[in-house]
Amino acid sequence: MEWEALARELSQTTETKIVLLVIDGVGGLPVDGKTELETARKPNLDDLAKRGVCGVSDPVMMGITPGSGPAHLALFGYDPLRHQLGRGILEALGSGVEVGRNDLVARGNFATVRGGLVVDRRAGRIPTEENVRICGYLNTHLPRHDGVEVRVFPGKEHRFVTRFTSEGLADALSDADPQKEGALPVPTAPLVPEAAKASAVVNRFLDDVAAVLAGEAKANAALLRGFSKFPSIPTMQELFKVRPAAIANYPMYKGLAKILGMEVMDVGSETTDLFDALEKNWAGYDFFYIHYKKTDSAGEDGKFAAKIAAIEVLDPFIPRLLALKPDVLVVTSDHSTPALLKGHSWHPNPFVLVSPTAGTDDVAAFTERACAKGILGRFRSISAMPLMLAHALKLKKYGA
Amino acid sequence: MEWEALARELSQTTETKIVLLVIDGVGGLPVDGKTELETARKPNLDDLAKRGVCGVSDPVMMGITPGSGPAHLALFGYDPLRHQLGRGILEALGSGVEVGRNDLVARGNFATVRGGLVVDRRAGRIPTEENVRICGYLNTHLPRHDGVEVRVFPGKEHRFVTRFTSEGLADALSDADPQKEGALPVPTAPLVPEAAKASAVVNRFLDDVAAVLAGEAKANAALLRGFSKFPSIPTMQELFKVRPAAIANYPMYKGLAKILGMEVMDVGSETTDLFDALEKNWAGYDFFYIHYKKTDSAGEDGKFAAKIAAIEVLDPFIPRLLALKPDVLVVTSDHSTPALLKGHSWHPNPFVLVSPTAGTDDVAAFTERACAKGILGRFRSISAMPLMLAHALKLKKYGA
Repeated sequence: MEWEALARELSQTTETKIVLLVIDGVGGLPVDGKTELETARKPNLDDLAKRGVCGVSDPVMMGITPGSGPAHLALFGYDPLRHQLGRGILEALGSGVEVGRNDLVARGNFATVRGGLVVDRRAGRIPTEENVRICGYLNTHLPRHDGVEVRVFPGKEHRFVTRFTSEGLADALSDADPQKEGALPVPTAPLVPEAAKASAVVNRFLDDVAAVLAGEAKANAALLRGFSKFPSIPTMQELFKVRPAAIANYPMYKGLAKILGMEVMDVGSETTDLFDALEKNWAGYDFFYIHYKKTDSAGEDGKFAAKIAAIEVLDPFIPRLLALKPDVLVVTSDHSTPALLKGHSWHPNPFVLVSPTAGTDDVAAFTERACAKGILGRFRSISAMPLMLAHALKLKKYGA
Repeated sequence: MEWEALARELSQTTETKIVLLVIDGVGGLPVDGKTELETARKPNLDDLAKRGVCGVSDPVMMGITPGSGPAHLALFGYDPLRHQLGRGILEALGSGVEVGRNDLVARGNFATVRGGLVVDRRAGRIPTEENVRICGYLNTHLPRHDGVEVRVFPGKEHRFVTRFTSEGLADALSDADPQKEGALPVPTAPLVPEAAKASAVVNRFLDDVAAVLAGEAKANAALLRGFSKFPSIPTMQELFKVRPAAIANYPMYKGLAKILGMEVMDVGSETTDLFDALEKNWAGYDFFYIHYKKTDSAGEDGKFAAKIAAIEVLDPFIPRLLALKPDVLVVTSDHSTPALLKGHSWHPNPFVLVSPTAGTDDVAAFTERACAKGILGRFRSISAMPLMLAHALKLKKYGA
């Protein structure tokens, strides 16, 4: 029996509440001997380490650098090697695009093509308002084809989501993106015979876009990546019998939460908005996922000081979590994003769990090296959910 | 290749001896800052921690609270998610009921049926003496049918075990229990065609019981759940080429040991009886499983002080283990039973291994927090058996 089957069998609904705060990419690497977490002043996070039990978690397995999709899936108790989610569906759902069973979605960039070559994959990062105008124009001026409905939805700057609606569209398609500049545009190609229709529909769309936008100075072509259909994955309600709420303000995380059946809260972009939303919705749910993005963004940009600042901005909000008296509070990350590496990494995440059923260990700081000495040891992130459910007394005994 | 196949291939018989002392439910949670193990005076157990190497083990996986069955299976090297023992067989074996190859057993409740409906699934929780009287009456008054022998064995209050003996009885049967009150009694039904005979035998028994007990005020019907036959599971001899002995005095653990092919010693209920039996049988076996129950019982009752006392009662016997000079001595538990939780829990077990091939680490106390810092780290209990066999030089090299 696997964990998912076990979870279905053992999980039970209780009044207890779990809070999972994901400080995206918080784990790092030393610069001048200390990591971002070791440098930041964060008395409240350190206090959690003293109150609870600590460990470090590998998102997928030792040495594997995950994208945000698999890293979050693991934290939510889903095997990231079994369930794979396309970037397109995450972006689409996260942008509030409705996706149905006959829909095929993809992430898009507006790009600049000149002399037959892609000279700018981001169309000079056109302003978002320009993007909105162009998408509106496309939605009214793209030629119509029988049996296929197409819509584009503007995102930030040059990004958009496109949705094709038709019977029989498969998502086994290669990206329509040369991935570098100075190269020829690349059409999509079917990866399995069943995707031939989808491939033809997508390539006709790319031609249509180029024709309709021929007069644009910058955004005169589209690149598409991450073709995907709505994934079939059991919800958290089905597996764990929880009523989950997601408190996040980036589309990708909201999308993922929606796929897993979480109720996605509308929150603003300030740090306080996350905690306001938590307090406001406290009565209605028993599992709260809070996503804090600023640490990851700073890490991705290679900004060591900015990542420290992002940790220090979050730290004073921790007492607001404790004031709600959750039965289980976990603070960790989906993956590490060392500023030194300017990107996601394979390093395990510091992990702290505070609960009346957990006791304490000797760890006194919420850092990579301190947590590695904690009583929880080193484990895969997929164990985080059984651990949280157990401490919330939401798992019955296995076997007699 | 999985562990079981690997074990069959690599295990070898040697003269070396392994002792596995299971201090049932010994792991706990802090009360006033200290756990039961941290509070108990236990110089000999602490001495073992100094002599050997330590770690902590998760019975099934992090977060999963196991019953005694899966928890022990794991310690004996069997995947507890693969091998599942029916409630009926454990209850039967645990009640001291002999189960053979032609036997089908089930857990039963006496119930009250009125106006054709089950109005009380527990027959008002009749006293155990009533139960003994009714089972005796049934065993003498149930009508006899050719080729089938039936016996009922009283348990506590309204609970009993029933055993059907006949050729060709399968256990793929649905429960004969409506699971709620105010409902019609439910007959069993075969889940596969081969269980048709067993289904008919069981349903005739249910009718017979109702007829024989028609005059009872409360216990006038039987409900049956968890039909099971003697499980087919490879023995420890087959997998590990050991000659195993079980030294335990509770029926459930003796039953489990029997299922795995261990020779079960007859021992009394005093702590010294365990060690007397070990010494007496030292020459005849090379794997000794010793089960100490008092810690678990105290934990289940929520008695923190009694659990400490149970640890302190056991501690002076440890030198008798060392005096036998086992090649490998492991002291651990099947699962934790914190007095704080009044039941089994998911917390990992402290684990110490003493062997000339093990060396030592820095751990100086046999406690949850001290063992968590040991050189063995955190591992699943199923790894305990390969570890013990290895240190006893009972596993050959894998591959060239």
